[in-house]
Amino acid sequence: ELNPLWAGQCMSLSVEEVLFHERSKYQDVLVFKSKTYGNVLVLDGVIQCTERDEFSYQEMAAHLPLFSHPNPQNVLVIGGGDGGVIREILKHPSVESVTQCEIDQVVIDVCRKFLPSMSKSMDDSRVTQYIGDGLAFMRDNRAKYDVIITDSSDPQGPAECLFEKPYYELMRSALKDGGIICAQGECMWLHLKLICKMKEFCESLFPSVSYGYCTIPTYPSGQIGFMLCGLSKVVTSHINILAIVYYTILKVIIVYKISTCHIRKLMSLDTNFKEPCRVLSESEYASMGLKYYNPEIHKAAFVLPQFAKLV
Amino acid sequence: ELNPLWAGQCMSLSVEEVLFHERSKYQDVLVFKSKTYGNVLVLDGVIQCTERDEFSYQEMAAHLPLFSHPNPQNVLVIGGGDGGVIREILKHPSVESVTQCEIDQVVIDVCRKFLPSMSKSMDDSRVTQYIGDGLAFMRDNRAKYDVIITDSSDPQGPAECLFEKPYYELMRSALKDGGIICAQGECMWLHLKLICKMKEFCESLFPSVSYGYCTIPTYPSGQIGFMLCGLSKVVTSHINILAIVYYTILKVIIVYKISTCHIRKLMSLDTNFKEPCRVLSESEYASMGLKYYNPEIHKAAFVLPQFAKLV
Repeated sequence: ELNPLWAGQCMSLSVEEVLFHERSKYQDVLVFKSKTYGNVLVLDGVIQCTERDEFSYQEMAAHLPLFSHPNPQNVLVIGGGDGGVIREILKHPSVESVTQCEIDQVVIDVCRKFLPSMSKSMDDSRVTQYIGDGLAFMRDNRAKYDVIITDSSDPQGPAECLFEKPYYELMRSALKDGGIICAQGECMWLHLKLICKMKEFCESLFPSVSYGYCTIPTYPSGQIGFMLCGLSKVVTSHINILAIVYYTILKVIIVYKISTCHIRKLMSLDTNFKEPCRVLSESEYASMGLKYYNPEIHKAAFVLPQFAKLV
Repeated sequence: ELNPLWAGQCMSLSVEEVLFHERSKYQDVLVFKSKTYGNVLVLDGVIQCTERDEFSYQEMAAHLPLFSHPNPQNVLVIGGGDGGVIREILKHPSVESVTQCEIDQVVIDVCRKFLPSMSKSMDDSRVTQYIGDGLAFMRDNRAKYDVIITDSSDPQGPAECLFEKPYYELMRSALKDGGIICAQGECMWLHLKLICKMKEFCESLFPSVSYGYCTIPTYPSGQIGFMLCGLSKVVTSHINILAIVYYTILKVIIVYKISTCHIRKLMSLDTNFKEPCRVLSESEYASMGLKYYNPEIHKAAFVLPQFAKLV
């Protein structure tokens, strides 16, 4: 796996058998059976997922945003043609619909054939699939989703625009009030500059922004990050009276020079990604069959080493 | 980097120039200049450290145990011929002596020549070096050290015994009361079985045992772990009276059926590795020039993903 994005280093997996290799309309698609990591999906020469370690990325990409939302009902996935993130989203009983927008039908087809432990989730009745451009889809679907997850490849070629400000503006417009996005955020050991740039434009768009990460052997340098952004909740009509009382109290607080930041926190209008807002019982977690995520690793995912603290 | 310890996967670094390559009495020693990771030390075909990312391992190997000890004065390092761990240990003003026991003079010599940012620490007046077998050294030096750090290669060939119970018994015997050991603990993604076995025998030897980890791109799968074990503190003579009062209170507690585990915790006789016992000011940390360690990552290092929770 040679790439200018991680110049001078290379991760290799031992290939037992090539199961599929074709150029689709968008990219080079390869699936092989590896010696020790199960079946592996490779797009444009970059490992996307292996059966042995995919769970860490898929679980964290789904559960970091979903456990940060009080009641996620409608979820949009951009990319994620393997179906792994959808498998994890569907573990939340509050979820009523998952809409997936994947540009490449070939990716979906090969995953259905060779990576069933991920792709079988796409058969769930709550899932709707659109084959097409995620950007165009979001332009037509505004203020519809509680959570949007971008499960994309690296900022190179077709996925490059998914790491830029206009894409994040589009995601914001497709979110409901209090909505959350979680997007592939690259590795802090390799792409700290890009992550800092992304964090900066995210903070100009969203009141809550946090960068977290998980470990995963088959991604470059053994980690991958997530950019999490949240819109403010809006106090809804049926608690208007309560809200008026609340606001009056807050105005008093303002007189005493408490900052708007404090008020937001007091009102819990903004998302605090660093603490899951829903914590389940041991047996509920057990029934989800989690192999990476737990409430403690949720918090620890946002603790960065000193060199990455500027993020 | 091919090895049966991580079968079917391989990390490669682009070599610009081989600086040294010889077989010492103990192992194959290679130093090369890499394209993007600075100079790299390789022993028996396994990357030991690179100038670009060595700080994460060296800082965590040193600061996890040293910040878990209230007053570390005498420190023993087994292995660590590159000097990186010693560099970190010497950042603690309480440290009066660092004794290093490295079996291979050739490793020390090549590191002095090609990895000066790590090896220059070995010139400090507080450092004493012994070239020889760490096990024999510890047999002759009992109850002498506050902290022992084992900075070894993998459980293969000469270092194999460093992952076994008799070695941990020896380390225990070389510790003072309240002493702490920190030993290379392999990667949870690759060696969970070995880690579980080690944790089990450690728990039969020490009252406090915790497994933590850090991320590092050039170790297999991008992480490396640490086994931390602590002996109980013994109440010293000059606070005997206080101790008697304390014990009396505790006896009363026993009547009310509070377990010895609670008593230990109440008396803080055992080490809690998951919280640093010394926290410095921002400026004190800044003066240490840390690139990975901070008090938050100390705590997060012990939070394991679900699949590794049995550790």
